[in-house]
Amino acid sequence: MEFTINQIAAMLGGVVKGDGNLKINMLAKIQDAKPGQIAFLSNPKYEQFIYTTHASAVIVSNEFVPRKEITSVLICVRDPYNSFTVLLQEYYKMVSFQKTGIEEPSFIGKGSTVGESVYRGAFSYIGNNVRIGDNVKIYPHVFVGDNITIGNNVILHPNVKLYADTKIGNNCVIHAGVVIGSDGFGFAPQSDGTYKSIPQMGNVIIEDDVVIGANTVIDCATMYGDSTIIRQGVKLDNLIQIAHNVEVGKNTVIAAQSGISGSTKIGEHCVIAGQVGIAGHIEIANNTSIGAQAGISKSIKEEGQKLIGYPVFDVKDYFRSYAVFKRLPDLNERLRQLEKVVNGVKQENPVINDSAPS
Amino acid sequence: MEFTINQIAAMLGGVVKGDGNLKINMLAKIQDAKPGQIAFLSNPKYEQFIYTTHASAVIVSNEFVPRKEITSVLICVRDPYNSFTVLLQEYYKMVSFQKTGIEEPSFIGKGSTVGESVYRGAFSYIGNNVRIGDNVKIYPHVFVGDNITIGNNVILHPNVKLYADTKIGNNCVIHAGVVIGSDGFGFAPQSDGTYKSIPQMGNVIIEDDVVIGANTVIDCATMYGDSTIIRQGVKLDNLIQIAHNVEVGKNTVIAAQSGISGSTKIGEHCVIAGQVGIAGHIEIANNTSIGAQAGISKSIKEEGQKLIGYPVFDVKDYFRSYAVFKRLPDLNERLRQLEKVVNGVKQENPVINDSAPS
Amino acid sequence: MEFTINQIAAMLGGVVKGDGNLKINMLAKIQDAKPGQIAFLSNPKYEQFIYTTHASAVIVSNEFVPRKEITSVLICVRDPYNSFTVLLQEYYKMVSFQKTGIEEPSFIGKGSTVGESVYRGAFSYIGNNVRIGDNVKIYPHVFVGDNITIGNNVILHPNVKLYADTKIGNNCVIHAGVVIGSDGFGFAPQSDGTYKSIPQMGNVIIEDDVVIGANTVIDCATMYGDSTIIRQGVKLDNLIQIAHNVEVGKNTVIAAQSGISGSTKIGEHCVIAGQVGIAGHIEIANNTSIGAQAGISKSIKEEGQKLIGYPVFDVKDYFRSYAVFKRLPDLNERLRQLEKVVNGVKQENPVINDSAPS
Repeated sequence: MEFTINQIAAMLGGVVKGDGNLKINMLAKIQDAKPGQIAFLSNPKYEQFIYTTHASAVIVSNEFVPRKEITSVLICVRDPYNSFTVLLQEYYKMVSFQKTGIEEPSFIGKGSTVGESVYRGAFSYIGNNVRIGDNVKIYPHVFVGDNITIGNNVILHPNVKLYADTKIGNNCVIHAGVVIGSDGFGFAPQSDGTYKSIPQMGNVIIEDDVVIGANTVIDCATMYGDSTIIRQGVKLDNLIQIAHNVEVGKNTVIAAQSGISGSTKIGEHCVIAGQVGIAGHIEIANNTSIGAQAGISKSIKEEGQKLIGYPVFDVKDYFRSYAVFKRLPDLNERLRQLEKVVNGVKQENPVINDSAPS
Repeated sequence: MEFTINQIAAMLGGVVKGDGNLKINMLAKIQDAKPGQIAFLSNPKYEQFIYTTHASAVIVSNEFVPRKEITSVLICVRDPYNSFTVLLQEYYKMVSFQKTGIEEPSFIGKGSTVGESVYRGAFSYIGNNVRIGDNVKIYPHVFVGDNITIGNNVILHPNVKLYADTKIGNNCVIHAGVVIGSDGFGFAPQSDGTYKSIPQMGNVIIEDDVVIGANTVIDCATMYGDSTIIRQGVKLDNLIQIAHNVEVGKNTVIAAQSGISGSTKIGEHCVIAGQVGIAGHIEIANNTSIGAQAGISKSIKEEGQKLIGYPVFDVKDYFRSYAVFKRLPDLNERLRQLEKVVNGVKQENPVINDSAPS
Repeated sequence: MEFTINQIAAMLGGVVKGDGNLKINMLAKIQDAKPGQIAFLSNPKYEQFIYTTHASAVIVSNEFVPRKEITSVLICVRDPYNSFTVLLQEYYKMVSFQKTGIEEPSFIGKGSTVGESVYRGAFSYIGNNVRIGDNVKIYPHVFVGDNITIGNNVILHPNVKLYADTKIGNNCVIHAGVVIGSDGFGFAPQSDGTYKSIPQMGNVIIEDDVVIGANTVIDCATMYGDSTIIRQGVKLDNLIQIAHNVEVGKNTVIAAQSGISGSTKIGEHCVIAGQVGIAGHIEIANNTSIGAQAGISKSIKEEGQKLIGYPVFDVKDYFRSYAVFKRLPDLNERLRQLEKVVNGVKQENPVINDSAPS
């Protein structure tokens, strides 16, 4: 990146105080910034740094009134933190999508087409009859199987593996080592104790705006014509297992190392923490929040619950129960003491127990 | 695939009603099928669809009597569901094994041999002194290290990584991203607080008919001459960890994200659910069934148990205990009430506790 | 490897009894050894094998006095087990680092440099402005992104993926499928229920002597200039998740499938078992030992604790509580019996409860 301060100010709708023709090539924190870099000042705690920073430019609030001399050029905006975030995002997008062209050797099969501004890294492999949209970035060692469709503005990081027939929407980011479309885990037990593989012939559909973390695996659906579906806006962290025929609803977020078993349907706007396990053939209602390491064995029908435990129940109740769990040996001892007392009473004064005194 | 209906009927031992010369190129569900496709009708609930389906052929029971006109050709068999499954399996096998030949660039080292009908995808790597059998499919980006032996009819999906000296039997399917033969996790603590790596010089043996899910890892044995062994017919799901010197017995099935620690021996016909953890240096008896997220810290000696919890015990007992766990705050309160009563009694009527009234 | 027995004896400071000019090409266990191999005898239990072994040489204690004829050449040392381990380590190092040179096709970008004795396997990819030290082994399908620095004596096993800007020290071993530098899982919730990705612009620093197991993932830090840091001597097992901005302290060991959430700081010399989950933004004191499948939700401030459970507490207390948990239905029943007795007393003899008899 290389922009003048004036160009950046125009982008942010800000006002420049100082030489707007200086060039900026990087973003930085105000305490670390070097010449050629731009920083921001939002939290007053950091004000001291604006008088000593080497940043060429600092984004400040319209209200900011310097108490000492400042050598940096200022860009005055309504909300400096928000403006810096916008800048970060633009910069990140620029960096992420900067590669174009074809590095050799790379492989593309028969009948496959790619759009404009596509990057195909060295050793990337595209099978037959693949449709790839515009501005797609295919890093080295990516495998795209036959009959796959990929939308626009998609990033496939190094070594993503897409089995045949996968469909990927627009604006998706898929991280290194992700496997999409591998066989579901389906085996028919035979009378001799062995298992026969059930053919896994469906596919996986990833809708728009989905992010998938490194080394996560998403299995294909079992039947031809069926799909494992990751809905629009879903964010999956690293090392997650999504089994065959699962559907994850819109804008649901799942943290690392969680696993969803076959044919389960997760609702929209759910938040699932790390290392959670969810059984097969169940449904999780919208807006469900599931705590770390929880295990879910039955459908969650009521929306908006916060759950934890194995099997899960209300998170507050879990911690109340767990507080007692930690004192169980004490509880047990108290019970024994009571038994001693009461049984002592019983033995020594049988009348109390066996018949009412008149 | 492209077969005539007559050919398919012959394969299934069925009788054709209609034009057996029509060509079939795909399997489908009866409600979705298009011309050129074959479907089946087994469940009477779906009978309505046979009168409107666009399938070129439908597999039906010998007993089936149409109540309206049907445009599809019928193949009459004893068990339509079973026949369709046979067809599915044949089709799947055909699709899975259809690739042959060598895509370039690919790499093969010195002294390595491959059998008949082998596929070697672009960017696949085969080291030195490797023996590969017939009908093996090596997808792009697969790495086969030195001195490896692979049997017949094996599929190595994209990006499988086999470290040197691995042995793989016949009819195995190994999914994308699987790592076999990586170093076991062995470190000798030193007096200065650091750890020295213990050389991991053994290998991994995968017997016949094993399926291994995507991104699963199987470490090699520690000592030269020893092996981590996956016995015949074992099915491993995705993202599983198998540590050094583990042995998994015949026809055992392990679900996703479970982990087996070093030197543990799992029996035959065990069923291990997802996210289970098993400690090192123990043995699990045959036919053991372990529930999701369970943790096993000691050997399971009695066969045929169903276990769960951490550490595991009988699954029914676990759920009975857990039912009480959920009410522990209530239990605690009941205990306090009793204590109040009884201690109230004690304080107010010390005689009852300290000596028997006569 | 091929050494004479004399050369090996010199390396171990041992004394040869027999023909020191015989050649050795492999290490083996005494009961399995073949001609050309060297074994050791330490445990007296195995003495029987020294009289029948086919090993060309056996390492024995200086004190060892044969009771029968031995055909193998002996190397007498102070501690045979330790000597054999030294030999194992030397052999392993030799094997691990034996590959050198460049296999084609391989890819190297602009402005990148590699040191002496480097191996670059076929289909390996090195981006732009990369600095690679001496004796680095880059196996096939490895991806090294732009602006990366790698020290000396590092092994990158097949298919390791390093995102741009990663820094790796000396003597590190990184196993197949490891991903370093993927985006942290950071998303800003928007008012319409969607999430916006927070740009992840930091990097990952791996210090010297670190081992990272297969398919483990380490995310980059969020802010430009910040780093996720794995300190010197850390050993990570397979399939571990290390989130953005985490720091793992010196010589800490983490077993397979554990996960550390964002911005958490793990102390030095900690031992973390398998499938452990640690929440974000907390600190774990030095020398903390965490049991398998434990969940940590709050900072651990006191050093040297042994913890387990979810959330964790003292491991002995956990097992005491768990022992009672297993008997909870019984506890509940005992409580009910007591209630019956005491409430029976209450109902039948209200005087006892409500007022003291005089």
